Amino acid sequence: MKHEAEELARRAAEGDERSLARLISGIEAGEPVSLEALRSLRATRAGVAANAGAASSAGIEANAGVDASAGVAPPGARVVGVTGAPGSGKSTLVDALVRVSRELDRRVAVLAVDPSSPYTGGAILGDRIRMARWHADEAVFVRSMAARGHLGGLAAAALQVVALLEAVGFDLVLVETVGVGQSEVEVAAAVDTTVVVLTPGQGDGVQAVKAGLMEVADVFVVNKADQPGAERLVRDVRGALGLAGPPPAGTWSPPVLTSVATREEGVAELSAAIDRHREHLEASGASDRARRRRVRGEVRALVAEAVRRELARVPEEELDSVAEGERDARTLAMALLSRAADANA
Amino acid sequence: MKHEAEELARRAAEGDERSLARLISGIEAGEPVSLEALRSLRATRAGVAANAGAASSAGIEANAGVDASAGVAPPGARVVGVTGAPGSGKSTLVDALVRVSRELDRRVAVLAVDPSSPYTGGAILGDRIRMARWHADEAVFVRSMAARGHLGGLAAAALQVVALLEAVGFDLVLVETVGVGQSEVEVAAAVDTTVVVLTPGQGDGVQAVKAGLMEVADVFVVNKADQPGAERLVRDVRGALGLAGPPPAGTWSPPVLTSVATREEGVAELSAAIDRHREHLEASGASDRARRRRVRGEVRALVAEAVRRELARVPEEELDSVAEGERDARTLAMALLSRAADANA
Repeated sequence: MKHEAEELARRAAEGDERSLARLISGIEAGEPVSLEALRSLRATRAGVAANAGAASSAGIEANAGVDASAGVAPPGARVVGVTGAPGSGKSTLVDALVRVSRELDRRVAVLAVDPSSPYTGGAILGDRIRMARWHADEAVFVRSMAARGHLGGLAAAALQVVALLEAVGFDLVLVETVGVGQSEVEVAAAVDTTVVVLTPGQGDGVQAVKAGLMEVADVFVVNKADQPGAERLVRDVRGALGLAGPPPAGTWSPPVLTSVATREEGVAELSAAIDRHREHLEASGASDRARRRRVRGEVRALVAEAVRRELARVPEEELDSVAEGERDARTLAMALLSRAADANA
Repeated sequence: MKHEAEELARRAAEGDERSLARLISGIEAGEPVSLEALRSLRATRAGVAANAGAASSAGIEANAGVDASAGVAPPGARVVGVTGAPGSGKSTLVDALVRVSRELDRRVAVLAVDPSSPYTGGAILGDRIRMARWHADEAVFVRSMAARGHLGGLAAAALQVVALLEAVGFDLVLVETVGVGQSEVEVAAAVDTTVVVLTPGQGDGVQAVKAGLMEVADVFVVNKADQPGAERLVRDVRGALGLAGPPPAGTWSPPVLTSVATREEGVAELSAAIDRHREHLEASGASDRARRRRVRGEVRALVAEAVRRELARVPEEELDSVAEGERDARTLAMALLSRAADANA
């Protein structure tokens, strides 16, 4: 297994898209070979960063704030969530961001998470269309995830895939989500920067407030800004942000930008705002916190998968004994936890 | 604890709404007293059913198909999911169903699940308005659940509350959900009957197909049937259902009904269709399968809560060791499972 894992890891890190796709599927399924490959990729990156740190410590530009030898992880990819309602032009905006990032010579991965698609294979078709657009460019990778098979938590599973995309060396990972539901909020809690895409004339401002998006947004973009009502929406969002009063010194104040993604207007400005937010995070240590939240998400996905397997195996008599009050559900739940731990030890 | 649990259970079973509300909060929080109360309520119901079975076995009307002494659970409540997009008039329809059910002298509980509300306390306000409507009637209980605090799975947590509502003796439990996302699909998989509410003129038919609702619906209702496009929508849905060909003999073929919930038109017919579906389920043994799926959901909610607690306690160094490839996420996940089992043993 070790050999197979190393081989897959090496090829994925070299940019082989088939190996990467295979690893993603393996990680979604909790397959040991893929998980070992991910560990190995991370170890390599940590080693490189530690060496770079040691080299710079020995030189003149030693950075007193970062002691690489103590095991501080490399900064890794920028992980940016882009969330917006269906029809907000979110995918077009993400594609435009990919183009801008390529001009900056960054390697970019896009992960489109669609929780509204539990049964259909719709995401796959979307994948192919978008993949085709970037097919000639090996530094761009696009993948979609539907809810299917992630009953333990779509968000947690997505964070595992983000970890892999980061580990194989993408500079930017764009996680595209439909802005409703708890999956989005969980993803938003674990990315470095959350971009909320709004559009004029759909009551989106109100929707954003209702769905809790105001609280998670680091950057707002009013897309389709050439349509009526765009200025009004910008004012409304700024007004809603202002209600909380002026932000305390040193905190991030979310900018409200405009774009016309179909004409690539405003996209370079959006990219720059994302960069500024990342710099702010790094200065404040929030990047480390986001990284740890992603690891928590990964661990949760793996636990959920182990539990799901064990739960599927519970005999009907045990379920009936709970329904009839012979024992309580908690006793069965804890027995199941022990069994899942034993089965995977 | 045992005494407190028995006391709460007794009062909730007698119809005391404060005790019931307290038990629901306790169950959502995984509180041992409330879980013990639920177990006790279930044991009482199973005992009553077994006695009833024994009595009828001794008498003339013995039912050869049901051997209560072998521990078959009582039939319990009808658990009906009502799902539809915001604005479909779903809540009005549910209220109308409550009224019809009261005319049939059934005790009714409504659980409104709103996964789109992760941060706000909006559900609480809705609760109060609806509670006020039924306040004078002790045989009606209304409760809302938002996503907040159920990161382990809103659907699983909702199924625990359904188990309690069933155990305190409601004849009908209506679970109202917004028809998007995986929570709905999980709830739909565990209720006895899923009613999908559509409305004309919103492309709802297409939406239903896209969201996987066609597969889970047992009964369709085109609400706002006095609006243009209603007949067309009924035809479209019937057409979509017909695409699969005639259903095999003995299987359920979802009826497509119409209603105008605001005028209570078509609601008695909907109630009758739900009853017919229930009879069909009982004849085919599917009711038992739904009941077991609900217990699975409950157990999953409790496991998820235990895991969430343990995950929050993981020291930063352990998370960093995963991010740096010193160990893989799976090893940490399994260690966490063992710790969660030990902590709750």
